[in-house]
Amino acid sequence: MDSGGSYVVHPIEWVESSLVARDAAPKQGDEGAPDAWLVFEPEVGEGLRGLQVGAEVIVLTWLDRARRDVLVVHPRGDLTRPETGVFNTRSPDRPNPVGLHRVMIVSTEGGRVLVRNLEALDGTPIVDVKPVLDRDTER
Amino acid sequence: MDSGGSYVVHPIEWVESSLVARDAAPKQGDEGAPDAWLVFEPEVGEGLRGLQVGAEVIVLTWLDRARRDVLVVHPRGDLTRPETGVFNTRSPDRPNPVGLHRVMIVSTEGGRVLVRNLEALDGTPIVDVKPVLDRDTER
Repeated sequence: MDSGGSYVVHPIEWVESSLVARDAAPKQGDEGAPDAWLVFEPEVGEGLRGLQVGAEVIVLTWLDRARRDVLVVHPRGDLTRPETGVFNTRSPDRPNPVGLHRVMIVSTEGGRVLVRNLEALDGTPIVDVKPVLDRDTER
Repeated sequence: MDSGGSYVVHPIEWVESSLVARDAAPKQGDEGAPDAWLVFEPEVGEGLRGLQVGAEVIVLTWLDRARRDVLVVHPRGDLTRPETGVFNTRSPDRPNPVGLHRVMIVSTEGGRVLVRNLEALDGTPIVDVKPVLDRDTER
């Protein structure tokens, strides 16, 4: 434990994207999000070993422009839908605003990885990258 | 940004499980992990509104017993397999040790939620809970 029951995230990389405004960003990657670069810190470069073009990965981001004091929301910001708890939605506003994005690697270039359809904004810090497992996809 | 390019995670809850030793824990939930309780902090209880028994959710944990200075590993600790980058594995040891667990809610009781087959150790802090979306499961 780092201190007082909390933990410190040190971003391993950042998103480089044409998306800059939250209002303009799609809510999910398959709703028209652009391809985006993941730009890694040089000191974690070894951690990328083995990641291949064509692989599907889960990118965890820190949604640094989200509100952390929100517990209930109207899903997708639609006021006609009843309020629900944030843990029952994918709203970026939540106590620990970690974003979860399943994307495919389309290209790599040194410490940069291009992924398809990422809805995160330019400059968003990245917490982790993981391969997709069968268990994630089984119903 | 909280300070110096880092972010602070405040756990919303903890895992209550019969798993207490890392060596004894299955590597994935479908490899014999027990059911476990997610015990929420009272102040985030409103965030649970709408979560139903039978729902599949993604639980993000902070793997507080992991090493953060590891960048390459032998997959599944098997020394006969070549080393690969941690971002190409689900090793708990990684710069930001966030665990990703897809589980089903089997029961709820006040601020406690029982989920099936969770491989996280007793006392593991929980970062976030999200519903599973189709996008997470499409191939």
